[in-house]
Amino acid sequence: PRGFVQLVGAGPGAADLLTLRALRALGEADVIVHDRLVSEEVLDLARRDARRIFVGKKRALHCVPQEGINTLLVELAREGLRVVRLKGGDPFIFGRGGEEAQALAEAGIPFEVVPGVTAALGCAAQAGIPLTHRDAARMLTFVTGHTREGRLDLDFAALARPGQTLAIYMGLTTLPQLRDGLAREGFDPGTPAALIERGGSPRQRELRGTLTEIVARAPGWAGDGPVLLLLGEAVAHGALPARAEAAFA
Amino acid sequence: PRGFVQLVGAGPGAADLLTLRALRALGEADVIVHDRLVSEEVLDLARRDARRIFVGKKRALHCVPQEGINTLLVELAREGLRVVRLKGGDPFIFGRGGEEAQALAEAGIPFEVVPGVTAALGCAAQAGIPLTHRDAARMLTFVTGHTREGRLDLDFAALARPGQTLAIYMGLTTLPQLRDGLAREGFDPGTPAALIERGGSPRQRELRGTLTEIVARAPGWAGDGPVLLLLGEAVAHGALPARAEAAFA
Repeated sequence: PRGFVQLVGAGPGAADLLTLRALRALGEADVIVHDRLVSEEVLDLARRDARRIFVGKKRALHCVPQEGINTLLVELAREGLRVVRLKGGDPFIFGRGGEEAQALAEAGIPFEVVPGVTAALGCAAQAGIPLTHRDAARMLTFVTGHTREGRLDLDFAALARPGQTLAIYMGLTTLPQLRDGLAREGFDPGTPAALIERGGSPRQRELRGTLTEIVARAPGWAGDGPVLLLLGEAVAHGALPARAEAAFA
Repeated sequence: PRGFVQLVGAGPGAADLLTLRALRALGEADVIVHDRLVSEEVLDLARRDARRIFVGKKRALHCVPQEGINTLLVELAREGLRVVRLKGGDPFIFGRGGEEAQALAEAGIPFEVVPGVTAALGCAAQAGIPLTHRDAARMLTFVTGHTREGRLDLDFAALARPGQTLAIYMGLTTLPQLRDGLAREGFDPGTPAALIERGGSPRQRELRGTLTEIVARAPGWAGDGPVLLLLGEAVAHGALPARAEAAFA
């Protein structure tokens, strides 16, 4: 049989935020190639006898470099296997899914991409924070807080413009640099913000305040999970969801 | 019993891009309040005897104004019903879900928000176009091509900045205005672009080229479905998925 690869978005963490298409892919896979951002709860939905290969990436501990992952996917497919490359969130948002797709296409391996709920959407839904708002934010910008030689490498002039919500996939340590970079471009540090840990998972936590307050309080608040910062006037238009557990029962 | 409301993202169109959580909500709802962007295929997953209320919005034919929808949701919940407010894509991206959540919170109605795969992610996955790319786009911006008094009302200076992918939820008629507005801010009209119709649904179609080419060819190409424009250097890093039908069989 001919092998193939599905690049599958696992969503933000909770197993029931997987799409039906992703669930089917997991149920049919011979091998699952996954990284650290994929939760155990999601992995448990895979076919029982599917082989699991962990390739991923803890900061400062790149288990397998991207080129190695590309090669691995090609080789597994050439063995005739149904391969699921399972990625946190959506494969095409900060997940290097594009590079994997190109490598597969170049090698002549059939593949498809199954989109997923990206982390910011999972965070926002659970926290009741709209990402766009008629009056407050008609633009939504996703960016990663990656650093280059220890410095946060972002287009602060673009990010500081009004009328948008920023969703920043980042680490905690660069928060002060983010505040300073934005402030240099005239961004109001009193802008509403929410820092969200383990977003979209059952263990989501939120820290709310102005950007100034968040930067000050984050070090004492944060655990060891990935965080996401939502920033902009729309954050103040949130409404805390209240699951009426009695009603659901 | 106490009523409650779930604001549910229906995803981009294909029924199997619904999340498991959304599917469960549909299966338990007494009443579904939906708009035009939700496909029949998705509605068919609802409980058979659930009442369906269509509230939505065709351009130039606002069946029910937003305030009316807010009131409707509150009233249905007060009747003790399980209400699903079903929205195309994700409830918190250009869907006015924030306004509905606030209205529910103010009325003391329990609610939750179920995120969905927003249209741009569905389009990109199916077209094999990465939304971010290490070399080409480290920022991703979502914007709607809404008009104010016939003029496209966008922050062109922000959108024209390099290093980002733009995902523009828009109508066809304003494409020339978009090109001109971006060009005035120094944006290269030779930038790779893809216009996607009925994105994320089984009937997705794509028109690829530079922004200049797309604007010229779109009028003769487009059908009557909603379109989305992906614009930026990352678009050129795509790789067309090829579902090996034989392998899948």
